[in-house]
Order: sequence, then structure tokens, then C-alpha cells
Amino acid sequence: MRILGIDPGYAIVGWGVLDYRGNKFSVVDYGSIETPAGMNFNNRLLKIYDDLDLIIKRTKPDFLSIEKIFYNSNAKTAINVSQARGVLLLCSIQNNLEIFEYTPLQVKQAVVGYGRAEKKQIQEMTKIILNLKKIPKPDDTADALAMAVCHAHSYGSLIFEEKIK
Amino acid sequence: MRILGIDPGYAIVGWGVLDYRGNKFSVVDYGSIETPAGMNFNNRLLKIYDDLDLIIKRTKPDFLSIEKIFYNSNAKTAINVSQARGVLLLCSIQNNLEIFEYTPLQVKQAVVGYGRAEKKQIQEMTKIILNLKKIPKPDDTADALAMAVCHAHSYGSLIFEEKIK
Repeated sequence: MRILGIDPGYAIVGWGVLDYRGNKFSVVDYGSIETPAGMNFNNRLLKIYDDLDLIIKRTKPDFLSIEKIFYNSNAKTAINVSQARGVLLLCSIQNNLEIFEYTPLQVKQAVVGYGRAEKKQIQEMTKIILNLKKIPKPDDTADALAMAVCHAHSYGSLIFEEKIK
Repeated sequence: MRILGIDPGYAIVGWGVLDYRGNKFSVVDYGSIETPAGMNFNNRLLKIYDDLDLIIKRTKPDFLSIEKIFYNSNAKTAINVSQARGVLLLCSIQNNLEIFEYTPLQVKQAVVGYGRAEKKQIQEMTKIILNLKKIPKPDDTADALAMAVCHAHSYGSLIFEEKIK
């Protein structure tokens, strides 16, 4: 299966596309969609949509793995991230991806096997799992790859659990 | 000018389209986009997008007047309303509408001329201004029409202020 991982945002959207077959990963592509701070917010949404649409049409993933968001201390940021996330979900559903959401805790458990792992540990483990020479930059891209690994590990075990029932 | 007013939401999106020429309003159409509670959230976003896209293509407004949102007491609701609002903004910008946002206070001042007006007073005043027989239902639709009236009054005075400078 081919998985698109996304770390949602409006200034930076991290993304990474992985193939996962026979318990082996191969990296298809990864990067970030970035919108400048001075850009009108509505145009930022449009750029995020257009760029993601191109990425999906080019890499043709089957699944989207995206982080669940929670209210954080900054209400304005939470609202704007949510607006961008709505656009990311729309684009994915329009392109027929199956959408899965995971909490940060689920990502930690699925990638490192330990719910209290630190961000840096997740990034290191993601690098090792994907056989990358270094941790991708920006952090949002590394986090997006971890999202995709999380889905591969979680979904695989879901299917396995189904089979052994 | 033709104005689309929107009261954003994910269960109910109120909308109303008005023409405003020579200080006179005429109602083009109004209604609500409703998505059932049992529907998958991503499919709700898709329905909101598709329905709004049809409304815009059919009524061809020049402006979108949409309520600014603030963090309210329910974080989950705020996040979901924001995700839906992102989709509404995207659809409007893709259809080349000029987008204006107003706070509830601005709507009250523009429609009733009084910042402490109650919701019911705004709806009554909107009904009178638009020469409607009764207040449209649901409330979200009435609120959307008030948003459109707010833009007509605000934008008109902006232009007037420009001219008298």
C-alpha cells in the first residue's frame, strides 16, 4: 500500500509518501508545502490545496495518515490550522484516499513502541526505519513521514488481527 | 453588487444571496446546507464543498461575507467548524469571490446600528430590510442573510468614505 503522511499546518504542511509491502518500506517522496506569512490567508488555503492536489495526482497514494488536532493554548493558531486541515481533508477525499487519523500518542507507540518517546527519538527511529541518511528537514516533513510509518504499522496489525480471529 | 452571506458550520451552513444596487436590496436565494450527524466527517466536508460550489455557480455572487470565528468553550466544535470554514473559504476563492470577514459586533452595528443588539433583533431587522414575510429558518440562514446585509452596508460606506476623501 502507498501512504501519504501529513503534518497539518498553514505556514508549513509536512508531507511524505511511502510504499509499504511485505513489511518493507520504500520512500517515494517527501517535502513541505510552505506559504509565506505575508500572503492573504485565503490564498494560503488555495496554495495548500493546489500543491497537495499536485502531490497526490503525481504520487497516487491509497491512504492518508494525518495527525488529529487538539485545541492548544493559542486559539487563533488552532483555528487557522483547523481551516487548513479542512482543506487538506477535502483534497484527499476528492482524490479518493482512505483517511486515517492518529493522535501523537498513537504515533509514538506505532513508531517507537513507547508512548512517552520524545520528538527527537521518533525522528531518529523514522530515519532508521526508512533507511534515510539524515532526518529530513523541516521537522514537519520528518513528522509527516512518522505519520505514514504509524499508519503502516497500525493498519498492518489491524489486518493481522482480523486474520487471526 | 451580489453578495453571498455565510454562517459557517459543519452540521448546518446557513447561506443567503442578495443583490444590493442603489441602496436597495433584492433577495436572490437563501437556504442551508445540512449534513447528517451520522455521516463521516470527511464526507460532510465534501458535501459542504460540493453544495456550496453549486450554489455559487448558480447564483454567481461577487462577494463572500462570512463570520469571523473565535474560540468558544467547546474545543472539538471549534476545530470542526474551523475545518468546515476552511473548505467554504477554499470554494469561494476558487470561484473568484472577494472575501470579507466580519465579527458579530460588526454585524450588529451594520444591521441594527447598535452593538449590543440581540440575535432576535438582528433577525427582525434583516427581515424588514429585505422585505421578507417572515424570518427564514433555520437561524443559520437568517444569520447568513444578516452577514450579507452587513457587507452591503459596510462596503457601501467604505466606498463612500473613499469618494469623500
